[in-house]
Amino acid sequence: MMPIAITDPDDPRIEPYRAVRERDLVGRQHRFIVEGEVVLRVLLQQSRFDIESLLLAENRIDSLSNALENLPPNVPVYTANRQVMDAIVGFPIHRGILAMARRAPLPPVEDFLATLPQEALIVGLVGLANHDNVGGIFRNAAAFGAQGILLDQESCDPLYRKAVRVSVGGALIVPFTRVASANAMVRALQGASFEILAFSPAGQEILSQVKPARRTALLLGAEGPGLPPDLLAQTRTVSIPMSGGFDSLNVATTSGIALHHLKSQRS
Amino acid sequence: MMPIAITDPDDPRIEPYRAVRERDLVGRQHRFIVEGEVVLRVLLQQSRFDIESLLLAENRIDSLSNALENLPPNVPVYTANRQVMDAIVGFPIHRGILAMARRAPLPPVEDFLATLPQEALIVGLVGLANHDNVGGIFRNAAAFGAQGILLDQESCDPLYRKAVRVSVGGALIVPFTRVASANAMVRALQGASFEILAFSPAGQEILSQVKPARRTALLLGAEGPGLPPDLLAQTRTVSIPMSGGFDSLNVATTSGIALHHLKSQRS
Repeated sequence: MMPIAITDPDDPRIEPYRAVRERDLVGRQHRFIVEGEVVLRVLLQQSRFDIESLLLAENRIDSLSNALENLPPNVPVYTANRQVMDAIVGFPIHRGILAMARRAPLPPVEDFLATLPQEALIVGLVGLANHDNVGGIFRNAAAFGAQGILLDQESCDPLYRKAVRVSVGGALIVPFTRVASANAMVRALQGASFEILAFSPAGQEILSQVKPARRTALLLGAEGPGLPPDLLAQTRTVSIPMSGGFDSLNVATTSGIALHHLKSQRS
Repeated sequence: MMPIAITDPDDPRIEPYRAVRERDLVGRQHRFIVEGEVVLRVLLQQSRFDIESLLLAENRIDSLSNALENLPPNVPVYTANRQVMDAIVGFPIHRGILAMARRAPLPPVEDFLATLPQEALIVGLVGLANHDNVGGIFRNAAAFGAQGILLDQESCDPLYRKAVRVSVGGALIVPFTRVASANAMVRALQGASFEILAFSPAGQEILSQVKPARRTALLLGAEGPGLPPDLLAQTRTVSIPMSGGFDSLNVATTSGIALHHLKSQRS
């Protein structure tokens, strides 16, 4: 691994790293960006994605050298001093560690479900537009070894910079794909013999009493609106009992509680 | 309830609302601030704290009128237009809803524990310096009806503005107090016949196998350092099994998973 020193912020080789925040808003169509040591290590060791390049502050190379042994030899590692790196990125990038990776094509949901094992636990997200929550759900899904996540069109991009960061790399580990709508999600899951557990404060069954089927999908809606009523009408609905009158749990926390319960029932 | 119109940002009556962010940094010794409709409703209906005053944008009064029926008649309700309110607060305060409340004295930990019921579930925090995490833990504690939270000196203020907001009002519901150190926390809990469950990725027992004692305290440390080794050496240690090699769970999510399991075992 021979780092390539960048001394000019306008160097065309580091073009994808330019103006990070502005690009976040526009969206990166074929790529996504990873920042910080912990997530970079996930990208290098556990990720499903191809790495295009790294951009590291000069003083970060030594501490990363063992992780960089896993880097394919054709991936360029650019380095810059802090001043040049900040000028490229457009703000002070304290962590001094960035990587650019290629998005993978999102398979049709039927193909996605067909590749999963016969014993599988997955999560479906409907209307989850908050990057913190989606990142937190991917973190929990990775922690409990969920095999996949489905997202409807209203749910946000798991590879958005903030979602990746909050997921602590979980968004790089847990496979996911999009479905056209909540109804399409339900139909595809039913077609692939998944038992659907739709979480709602008004759910009929209590989580602690639920035993998972061989293939189980837990569906979560956004805090506030929750899952659509017509979806709840055609699925098993599950609630987590709470103390009198208090506002419901955060949806990412709900995913952690549900995945923990279902996983520990299974093992 | 007769609102008092404020037209001058320098009006001495709304002095405590001035320069909110700067005061956040300095700290409010005898007061704390609450923002937004959801948390204000908790303050009005479920809180343990005395309210000093409200400051509302003119256009928010109508939607709050039913909640304001619970307001003691001696509490002044100030109103201002957006321009004056923003000038008082020091930034655009979109929600247009603020309240000032009085802190309650923090009792010695022995007195605090003595007031709890014989069947009790509480949480102890060691070195939790992140307001999001402390807010999230109070939210979960309120959701699952935990009877109290102990904090060491390194843990942050649950009544800090951001912690209150993230707790969705849980910080106003769940009683808490401070202890001098993690060791003092352990001694006080043992003295009050609490079974201590210290959470650690290296914990000897698995959460799903744990049955709570009548009085149970779950202890949580900061992500990264975790609980101190000498504390783990003198307590029952509990882990949440995770999928191979992934970074540990967020500490607030851990509190939700643990409280849910212990509560559902009990009921």
